[in-house]
Amino acid sequence: MSLQRVLGRWWSSANGTLKGHQLLVIAPAPPAPEWVEKVKKKYPALEIIHYNKNPWEAGQTVPRDIDWSDVTIVLTGPLVPRPEQAPKLQVVQVSSAGVNYLLDNPLFKDTDVNFCTANGVHGPQIAEWVITTYLASQHHIPDYLELQNRGTWKRLDANVQDGVGARVGILGYGSIGRQVARVAKALGMEVIAYTNGRRPTPESRKDEGYIVPGTGDPDGIFPSRWLSGADDQFEEFLSSDLDLLVVAVPLTPSTTGLISGPQFKLLSKKKTFLSNIARGPIVDTDALIDALDNRMIRGAALDVTDPEPLPDGHPLWSKPNAIITPHISGNSSAYMDRVYDILELNLQKLSEGKGELVNKVNKKTGY
Amino acid sequence: MSLQRVLGRWWSSANGTLKGHQLLVIAPAPPAPEWVEKVKKKYPALEIIHYNKNPWEAGQTVPRDIDWSDVTIVLTGPLVPRPEQAPKLQVVQVSSAGVNYLLDNPLFKDTDVNFCTANGVHGPQIAEWVITTYLASQHHIPDYLELQNRGTWKRLDANVQDGVGARVGILGYGSIGRQVARVAKALGMEVIAYTNGRRPTPESRKDEGYIVPGTGDPDGIFPSRWLSGADDQFEEFLSSDLDLLVVAVPLTPSTTGLISGPQFKLLSKKKTFLSNIARGPIVDTDALIDALDNRMIRGAALDVTDPEPLPDGHPLWSKPNAIITPHISGNSSAYMDRVYDILELNLQKLSEGKGELVNKVNKKTGY
Repeated sequence: MSLQRVLGRWWSSANGTLKGHQLLVIAPAPPAPEWVEKVKKKYPALEIIHYNKNPWEAGQTVPRDIDWSDVTIVLTGPLVPRPEQAPKLQVVQVSSAGVNYLLDNPLFKDTDVNFCTANGVHGPQIAEWVITTYLASQHHIPDYLELQNRGTWKRLDANVQDGVGARVGILGYGSIGRQVARVAKALGMEVIAYTNGRRPTPESRKDEGYIVPGTGDPDGIFPSRWLSGADDQFEEFLSSDLDLLVVAVPLTPSTTGLISGPQFKLLSKKKTFLSNIARGPIVDTDALIDALDNRMIRGAALDVTDPEPLPDGHPLWSKPNAIITPHISGNSSAYMDRVYDILELNLQKLSEGKGELVNKVNKKTGY
Repeated sequence: MSLQRVLGRWWSSANGTLKGHQLLVIAPAPPAPEWVEKVKKKYPALEIIHYNKNPWEAGQTVPRDIDWSDVTIVLTGPLVPRPEQAPKLQVVQVSSAGVNYLLDNPLFKDTDVNFCTANGVHGPQIAEWVITTYLASQHHIPDYLELQNRGTWKRLDANVQDGVGARVGILGYGSIGRQVARVAKALGMEVIAYTNGRRPTPESRKDEGYIVPGTGDPDGIFPSRWLSGADDQFEEFLSSDLDLLVVAVPLTPSTTGLISGPQFKLLSKKKTFLSNIARGPIVDTDALIDALDNRMIRGAALDVTDPEPLPDGHPLWSKPNAIITPHISGNSSAYMDRVYDILELNLQKLSEGKGELVNKVNKKTGY
């Protein structure tokens, strides 16, 4: 391992112009001219190079014509160099929320190169998807769209429960859950958070990652209750009269099938609406179908399913009060702008020569 | 006019138990036992009577078996007594946002009886409708529901612009517009307010009416700009790069056809999404159809139309990117609870013997 990879070397001294630094952007589009201009103004010595390739294309090898020898920072995805190719590399900034696809890569495993994720860029748009599908269901919008398709002006004899005083439970209080909480509070809802670890102090409740400015819950102040797996409170969480349950935890062995028959039974008391924007297998599909068929829950919004893609003719498609979209809730035209925001924050950290990089991956845990 | 109707008589002295007061509730359902219990505890001398009738049924006359002689407060709708029937009547609390249907009634015109509206009870649910239909359109939810109906997992090649940095213009910054603003701010949007009159001072920006607790914009702090008709700024308002325009003004001669061809031309610069939850004739239907057909606007959500009901086969039904519902956005299971909240606040004013009644109608302006 080369000396350059010892953290202390750069972190100990400021480098206001980012002299000696070279940023390589691997993407189908170059960074916006405004972004380049802004960054060049701040860091006049920084060299910025664009390599025109989609780093997410499957099965690719590292192209021969990329010269990594002076690259210190790279914006990419799964496409990373072999360690010996990039002796000066300090920071790999990826444009995805996780680096699960890099955990076995030598650059990740065998070097001290820093990896930073784009965690936090999904908060606004996925929170909008959660709130929109929940409220659309509460206000019977899918039924009214059907009537509109038929060209018929007809009022449904159906109750509308608005958000004031309703309660949302957020399973996994990360960047997405926190923005759901912000909007839910504005709607007059009460927020209950659930996390794996205990969060008893104000400090422990802070969001440590990137936050789209003006959104989210930076200080963790929105939940009126905060339950945890460490305190064995999952059943209590599901039993707390939730109108809406938002599933926003990563898929791990311990979250696979987390919401199944017994959990739907707990949710049936309040006929909780289920929203899954995480991963399909966290919810047991057969149990979900049963819960919808038997009106144990008032409905479900699913941006992810198990299996996924959901095959044509699968029974889930036509279940009552289910809204299903094909894993698109993270789409936003602002996505890459936010990734460049994070990259810019990390350039600032490099130039200041101190402080922790934003969204830096812990090599031990992998996130 | 009897002496009892001189305001000063009751307002000058407190009456903690509401001795001598009789509340008549005219409604298909009695007030909730919890409400009665709570109110009786506060005002032990108050007599509460329920008369089982829907005061909104058309063409009705005042039933003979109602004894108005001791009634001091009535909760009703268009069904009110003749002045001579109710000599002790002080407050008519209606369950609608306006009293337009009572403006020519002798009880309104020829007496000093106070009339109070239920203005403010619609804010949460109509704001939800506005936000939901706008975001559903931005996230292409109607298209995905179509694909769901066909049972097909297919990602649309369509852009999603989320709310961060987007701009909403609110035409008529009343209780509904203010709650739209609260939610829009939580989504990261910028708010521009437009009102008839100038609102230059913090005092002038306050919401004077009933507000569902925890919602709305009591102090008028959410708008980054506040334009007005008094300053002749309507064109400037429509030209201010709005992503969403919310029409929330009452229908008057001066608002009829307010949004027509020239206005859609101004909105076409940003392809503003139009949301009308006020009254159909404020938007010119032919101009709207033209704007939708020619993609001058990105879409429209209409809970009200002109004509209304929208006839079967009307061209609006099938316009691209239009969401139409049959004047239902005000529905909420909490509606009557909120009306009883206002009534309770007004009982408190009566018992304190001072202060202005909540949502009291100005007899000169009629609202």
